[in-house]
Amino acid sequence: MGKKLLLKHRYNLVPEFEIYNRIKNFQKKLSESNIPVAIIYYPVNCYYFTGANQDEILIVYADREPVLLVKRDLERAKNDSPITQIFPLKSFSDLKKFINEKRVGFEFDYITLNEYKKFQSIIEAEFVDITQIINELRSIKSKYEISLMKHAGEIAKKVYLEGANYLKKGLTEIEFAGILEKIARKYGHEGILRTGSFRFESYTSHIMCGYTSTFTTKTATPTGGMGLSPAFPCGASFNEIKENKPILVDFGICFMGYQVDETRMFSIGEPEEEFVNYYKKILKIQHEIFENLKPGIIAGDFFDFIYEKSYSLGIEKYFLGFNKKFNFIGHGIGLHTSEFPVIAKNFNYLIKENMTFAFEPKMVIPEKYGLGIEDTVVVRKDRVERITSIPEEIICV
Amino acid sequence: MGKKLLLKHRYNLVPEFEIYNRIKNFQKKLSESNIPVAIIYYPVNCYYFTGANQDEILIVYADREPVLLVKRDLERAKNDSPITQIFPLKSFSDLKKFINEKRVGFEFDYITLNEYKKFQSIIEAEFVDITQIINELRSIKSKYEISLMKHAGEIAKKVYLEGANYLKKGLTEIEFAGILEKIARKYGHEGILRTGSFRFESYTSHIMCGYTSTFTTKTATPTGGMGLSPAFPCGASFNEIKENKPILVDFGICFMGYQVDETRMFSIGEPEEEFVNYYKKILKIQHEIFENLKPGIIAGDFFDFIYEKSYSLGIEKYFLGFNKKFNFIGHGIGLHTSEFPVIAKNFNYLIKENMTFAFEPKMVIPEKYGLGIEDTVVVRKDRVERITSIPEEIICV
Repeated sequence: MGKKLLLKHRYNLVPEFEIYNRIKNFQKKLSESNIPVAIIYYPVNCYYFTGANQDEILIVYADREPVLLVKRDLERAKNDSPITQIFPLKSFSDLKKFINEKRVGFEFDYITLNEYKKFQSIIEAEFVDITQIINELRSIKSKYEISLMKHAGEIAKKVYLEGANYLKKGLTEIEFAGILEKIARKYGHEGILRTGSFRFESYTSHIMCGYTSTFTTKTATPTGGMGLSPAFPCGASFNEIKENKPILVDFGICFMGYQVDETRMFSIGEPEEEFVNYYKKILKIQHEIFENLKPGIIAGDFFDFIYEKSYSLGIEKYFLGFNKKFNFIGHGIGLHTSEFPVIAKNFNYLIKENMTFAFEPKMVIPEKYGLGIEDTVVVRKDRVERITSIPEEIICV
Repeated sequence: MGKKLLLKHRYNLVPEFEIYNRIKNFQKKLSESNIPVAIIYYPVNCYYFTGANQDEILIVYADREPVLLVKRDLERAKNDSPITQIFPLKSFSDLKKFINEKRVGFEFDYITLNEYKKFQSIIEAEFVDITQIINELRSIKSKYEISLMKHAGEIAKKVYLEGANYLKKGLTEIEFAGILEKIARKYGHEGILRTGSFRFESYTSHIMCGYTSTFTTKTATPTGGMGLSPAFPCGASFNEIKENKPILVDFGICFMGYQVDETRMFSIGEPEEEFVNYYKKILKIQHEIFENLKPGIIAGDFFDFIYEKSYSLGIEKYFLGFNKKFNFIGHGIGLHTSEFPVIAKNFNYLIKENMTFAFEPKMVIPEKYGLGIEDTVVVRKDRVERITSIPEEIICV
């Protein structure tokens, strides 16, 4: 018991009521879809439903208590999770003992083909995709989840405001990224920004000064950055930070698995008037987003509505990219950097109460610089509530 | 052309001969396996075979020039890759134009079930797994790849030696991790340590002082660490670093996508005699590894041979864990933190010339501390050559 107690004292656990609400909501969805049992194998979803992120498989039945099988580390899973039925997983074939059902829910988006074949060889059943069921459950945040995201937002604020003290000309973009990382870790940023994808990687070093922020790359953003090498061709590079140039800092923070995403512009010395004017317009767009976002709007319609604003502000040529346009202004956020739903062109999903989004209107002045702002917010019944709260002004040092 | 030239000046590209050698070797293996064409979709393998890591699909024919289809960013892929046939990928169905073969190689370990279904709906063919073919190709490193890993090793050395200057009592483990991260980024460490797995995450903050290094967790290591939360229950915690206690620092570095892994022990003030004695023994094991590793040995046999040494040194009770034993001493390393092959119990694969490994003999003194050493090496015809070269002594500050 000594170790168990010690662990409890050293980090907070996900509360029991939170886990049981999540399981209960999931069971309701399983019943509605006539899925008697689901296997949760993807670690991020396991953590969501158990509060433990060990090497584990969770079995959720539509009509009875879930079972957690743990390969490693059994004691820590028991310490971290309020699930009552936790057993060792000695071999994959142990699964058979717990699943007799002929229709089994499975996360088709988070399982590799070889993993799937392994499960198929053990369990004779029809496998049905439950990815979207879980995406939708995860998209609505609880009070507890929002409190964790707000804590991450507090860390972000410290990172941006303390980080400003160390910004000076001659630093490389990647060097400044390292300085911010150091501050972030001190306050408990977990470092890894999970995405649930091999193709899309999230990282903290999305920091660019002037010209490099106009580079497009593999990511769906107008301000892609040069990166350090062709192996990692995104974000911060060895480019030196200069005086009086727009510096874009987009630095995700993770606390207890929950992420926030935010962007601020920095400047060493007085920012150029042109940049200040464009920044006022992008800020206006962000405020239009926050004033108009409500539950019940369709994401794609909201994108179109906001895109229209770029015309009335006269920035349509540069908004969301110059030669290459990017068709999104915001993404769901939580246990993944970008998760369901996104606020993008033609994305036909309803925005709901207690969904959390990172909104990042950005623009590119060709050959010169990119700029933008980003904040993480939660959609309330009749308003938008901020989760990140760094002052919106250009941070001049 | 301006942007192309600029990019070339700002970061190095993978040389043309390197890419064509890799493609040629792969084509030979495809022919031997009667696979006329392979689809490479996993970004790390795309980068390996093209030199570009954009949002892309590579088609490798057994008998003719490969074709690279790029969703985003076409210009950067053309800049970064020496592949001559590069075309835009506007829709997934474009693939049909390039594949008429009825047997198609595919990476079953790196494709999700939903991605697989998407490919299957477009290409009518038998899909065969090529994961292991590529794993084996990637396991043998070229002169060029080893030069990149040596550069990463030089960064690692700076991180450990400069980092020692900032180590002091009262810092938390995660705070010291941030300090090392700052130094690493300055020298060009890319930050992301790719693993090719949703289940196994690699991270730089594997830093623990005393008791926390005896915690086991989801990872296959005797020194798992407590971590910051149940969401990320590995490595550094908010535990304070104390004087005269063993401090374990295991910090991976990535350069141009290639990783090195190394561990050193630190101490603030004089280390205890017991710890020094155990450290001498673990160092002896590491030297036994380097003196005896040769091409032609079977990995599992080599594990057993080294494990035996723990008996003659009288540390068998603590070697590779106390209550829970871990059955590996080394892992392949390159574009992934841990890749084929591993040096583990019952692992029936031949060790070959120019394979690279991180060897990490570790041990745990229960209730007190973990300790170990780790270096990345390349297997030469008649010897082991070090890739990381930090002095082996306990780093006392």
